Amino acid sequence: MRMSSLFLRTLRDDPADAEVASHRLLVRAGYIRRAAPGVYSWLPLGYRVLRNVEQVVREEMERFGAQEVHFPALVPREPYEATGRWSQYGDNVFRLQDRKHADYLLAPTHEEMFTLLVKDLYSSYKDLPLHLFQIQTKYRDEARPRAGLLRGREFVMKDSYSFDVDDAGLEKSYQQHREAYLRLFERLGLDVVVVAAVSGAMGGSASEEFLHPSPAGEDTYVRCTSCDHAANVEAVTTRAPVAATVDELAARPARHVEDTPDTPTIQTLVDHANAAHPHDDRDWTAADTLKNVLVVLRHPDGAREPVAIGLPGDREVDAKRLQAVVEPAEVEPFTEADFAQHPGLAKGYIGPGALGSTSSTGIRYLLDPRVVAGTAWITGADTRGHHVFDLVAGRDFPAAGEEGSDGTIEAAEIRDGDACPVCDTGTLESARGIEMGHVFQLGRKYAQALGLQVLDENGKQVVVTMGSYGVGVSRAVAAIAESSHDEAGLVWPAQVAPADVHVVVAGKDADVAQGAEDLAVRLDADGLDVVLDDRKASVGVKFKDAELVGIPTIVVVGKRFAEGFVEVKDRRTGEREDVALDDLPARLGLGG
Amino acid sequence: MRMSSLFLRTLRDDPADAEVASHRLLVRAGYIRRAAPGVYSWLPLGYRVLRNVEQVVREEMERFGAQEVHFPALVPREPYEATGRWSQYGDNVFRLQDRKHADYLLAPTHEEMFTLLVKDLYSSYKDLPLHLFQIQTKYRDEARPRAGLLRGREFVMKDSYSFDVDDAGLEKSYQQHREAYLRLFERLGLDVVVVAAVSGAMGGSASEEFLHPSPAGEDTYVRCTSCDHAANVEAVTTRAPVAATVDELAARPARHVEDTPDTPTIQTLVDHANAAHPHDDRDWTAADTLKNVLVVLRHPDGAREPVAIGLPGDREVDAKRLQAVVEPAEVEPFTEADFAQHPGLAKGYIGPGALGSTSSTGIRYLLDPRVVAGTAWITGADTRGHHVFDLVAGRDFPAAGEEGSDGTIEAAEIRDGDACPVCDTGTLESARGIEMGHVFQLGRKYAQALGLQVLDENGKQVVVTMGSYGVGVSRAVAAIAESSHDEAGLVWPAQVAPADVHVVVAGKDADVAQGAEDLAVRLDADGLDVVLDDRKASVGVKFKDAELVGIPTIVVVGKRFAEGFVEVKDRRTGEREDVALDDLPARLGLGG
Repeated sequence: MRMSSLFLRTLRDDPADAEVASHRLLVRAGYIRRAAPGVYSWLPLGYRVLRNVEQVVREEMERFGAQEVHFPALVPREPYEATGRWSQYGDNVFRLQDRKHADYLLAPTHEEMFTLLVKDLYSSYKDLPLHLFQIQTKYRDEARPRAGLLRGREFVMKDSYSFDVDDAGLEKSYQQHREAYLRLFERLGLDVVVVAAVSGAMGGSASEEFLHPSPAGEDTYVRCTSCDHAANVEAVTTRAPVAATVDELAARPARHVEDTPDTPTIQTLVDHANAAHPHDDRDWTAADTLKNVLVVLRHPDGAREPVAIGLPGDREVDAKRLQAVVEPAEVEPFTEADFAQHPGLAKGYIGPGALGSTSSTGIRYLLDPRVVAGTAWITGADTRGHHVFDLVAGRDFPAAGEEGSDGTIEAAEIRDGDACPVCDTGTLESARGIEMGHVFQLGRKYAQALGLQVLDENGKQVVVTMGSYGVGVSRAVAAIAESSHDEAGLVWPAQVAPADVHVVVAGKDADVAQGAEDLAVRLDADGLDVVLDDRKASVGVKFKDAELVGIPTIVVVGKRFAEGFVEVKDRRTGEREDVALDDLPARLGLGG
Repeated sequence: MRMSSLFLRTLRDDPADAEVASHRLLVRAGYIRRAAPGVYSWLPLGYRVLRNVEQVVREEMERFGAQEVHFPALVPREPYEATGRWSQYGDNVFRLQDRKHADYLLAPTHEEMFTLLVKDLYSSYKDLPLHLFQIQTKYRDEARPRAGLLRGREFVMKDSYSFDVDDAGLEKSYQQHREAYLRLFERLGLDVVVVAAVSGAMGGSASEEFLHPSPAGEDTYVRCTSCDHAANVEAVTTRAPVAATVDELAARPARHVEDTPDTPTIQTLVDHANAAHPHDDRDWTAADTLKNVLVVLRHPDGAREPVAIGLPGDREVDAKRLQAVVEPAEVEPFTEADFAQHPGLAKGYIGPGALGSTSSTGIRYLLDPRVVAGTAWITGADTRGHHVFDLVAGRDFPAAGEEGSDGTIEAAEIRDGDACPVCDTGTLESARGIEMGHVFQLGRKYAQALGLQVLDENGKQVVVTMGSYGVGVSRAVAAIAESSHDEAGLVWPAQVAPADVHVVVAGKDADVAQGAEDLAVRLDADGLDVVLDDRKASVGVKFKDAELVGIPTIVVVGKRFAEGFVEVKDRRTGEREDVALDDLPARLGLGG
């Protein structure tokens, strides 16, 4: 590749819409160009990197026996209707009609199509396990496409699907994928943290995400300061305090209702409690109060169900965590009209007395795991201007998870410093990451909906159990750029770099130009991918562009060429040394 | 690849909807599956063939310096609006809106996007010539998708674009593409005929199609029985007779109007002429009459223009040829309402006297090239029930192409036996072909519409001239299957075959199975792609499947394995011979 004819223009200035380094540098270095919001064109160098990433992913999938297929992006409505995803996707997919008004979508993921294809071809447990993958252009109508390739609307993904006859098989397929992912991200030079995840709309059970820790990431996750536990915020579980025994409960002060005028908020309530009912040894805090938050769940069949969440008053409900645990239902506000329908609720003074499926309101009451037996609370007394003090869970109302309670819910916000749910010593801290991969144990949901069964060893029809696995291929290009760059530009790992060597002609001497040319031809013949900067530009411009473009090794043919020396610069370390031409092949890792 | 785990099921029966051999065999052999009308999924073997074809195309493009890029399939409306194609495409493209109601299309071709990208990056004649290509999934909402991959709605194409500063440059770029195409089709094992083509909606000038002659093809073209001339039916030109001289014209009998009651059609007219005005030495035929066909052109701006076409009465107007020459206008019928607006037209008795832009009707009158000076005609006398005889072109009305005529038109049907327009001896015969490639000299249309200019050597802004070139990549898979198969199944050329060798375990002996396995591993290590049929199936089934799947060389490990022999069968010729294991590598083309 000659820079004089390579379809490339480097830019000195950052594009106006670029928020993150990868976007800025990939545009400036001439790797990608924006075609529409969240939709990019790949220029020659960018497309090489993309294809290199694809190849690494392909090799690691094939290594454990996954077979490559290729589905259309344009897929018909019917299978997605059968699984309910046609409507579940909401505004997030591109839908269209053909000339005959038949409905299609541009697939963001292909569970349905793979399920149907396997159903079409296979019928026996002997055919399983099966792993299929594709590397394909996918579509998602993001509300806010951002950060260049990190969150696009047309992007390249590797998606794969496993098919097994039983749970043990699925577990093994899942582990094979998990290991392949760890290998491939390592080969791509991308650090990843594997975090526990909820499966969301995919409707499965076990699920993990591979996050590349990066401030540019959109995903927040938490990790333990002590053990190696890490989890998606939606998947973090709460370490509950130890519950009290029956005897301990009996010894607690009895509950008592107090006048608490004008205390509809936690803060006003805490202030009033400290003024009117001071605690003996410490001040009351928001953590002493039990806050009851009302929401409405809209279920996929359209039904609206009011639900109350009881949690310590010092924590907010985290909307994303709540949404994740109630899916496929959607969370909507509890409105004035809802209050009107439930006159038993004293707004601002709602307590456990008016909540629960067996209560007068009949509203399902889900408790934060911290509300264990023996915990005492200040909470609403269900009449305006009154709160109840020393209301003890497990004595005065069913504690979280106890018989008689409606269940627990993981919806409270997670805070840095919360106890690790796995080890006894660590606390949680939050970090940001880019979601690079995702492994799901889908289970039988899709096979059930679409009728994928096989005969088992006993000649009985059994529903196949599936896994679904994804890697963001175009996103990986951005993540690598994000993690591997410096002030001057991109710094590609050798495995994915658009070329191996960047030869710079540094000098106007015809011998130098010819020498560089000959050298480039020789290295190319030796199997290296070479970019030759043969432009009539200043050496300064060429050096700047070489740094920006980020090919791992820069070879400068210049002043000492007549003496038989070139300068070799390592783009990553910046180290440079003069190397005799004879030693160059070995220096560049070429044998013989 | 082991047949025991390969995601493949061969079918004994033809799929119900398969009209052509390639469709039938690609489905039966487990290469593709239909996902929606004109939309296919690629199974493992099929995807390998597709990628092999892609690689051949890529190498031949890169060989002459074309650079690979990749554009989105989802493209915004605006650039297509600027060139008029947003509406010109009519029902033939998939259009959609995003969540913000912005318009997009799934691109069938990318002239606009490439033009804009080059405009974005380049600004000087020094940057040109430039060749860019992509291998990409494209969309076209065909009214009648058919024949499997031959005419699909989602398909893979190589499209490329050349950018030059002047016409000579474009001509050179065009020739480079043309030569690359000839090479790549040869490497793919596909015979092609290069036919002259009109450029249609692309709006360019010089243009040729690469047709693979095949009865399954949808394109009709004509070729000369003598020279190597071939042309798309839309592009065939007519060999005009020699025009008469002024003296010859003067010597012709004078025109005379005759009563021809009830002769509104050519046949009734010829019958009447033979009955009432018998010719001296032969019967009148339809070829003696001049038929004037009225149509209306609807221009892109919406204007309706009536046009008359004068052609020998023994030929019909060919709707496709007419449409091709009037584009971008569309042809509509000349209605009763149109007749009402032109009372000078005597329906069924229209002659040159009432036609032409300087006539009383003012209707533009285009003549078939055969209506040269000196030809004498029976034609309408512009009053009901009357025709004029011995009306001589060039004497009584302006002949085709003469001063005073409105011009000629190539709209008459082409017939087998028509004179070749290129050589003096040959005649034309028609044949069917599959359009595999297309080269266009687009010219400045897109650059003009989208403002792509560069500074020329004199510092002056000049509009860039472009070429546009396409190869049907997924269609090539079908065309190869179409041209290379037999009763038993597919017969892949080595270059694109999904594997090199198909090893069949023929026998239940454990030694045979192990021997085949070892052999497959060894051949694989030697760099061959191997399919190993290790299934617990009968030898008959395995042989049938091997023939159907069509890998070039079949190696049977069976009876004589214990003696150190395997059977090698050439899939194409059917020749089989026993080969000693030691000689096998050489027999399979492996060195050393």
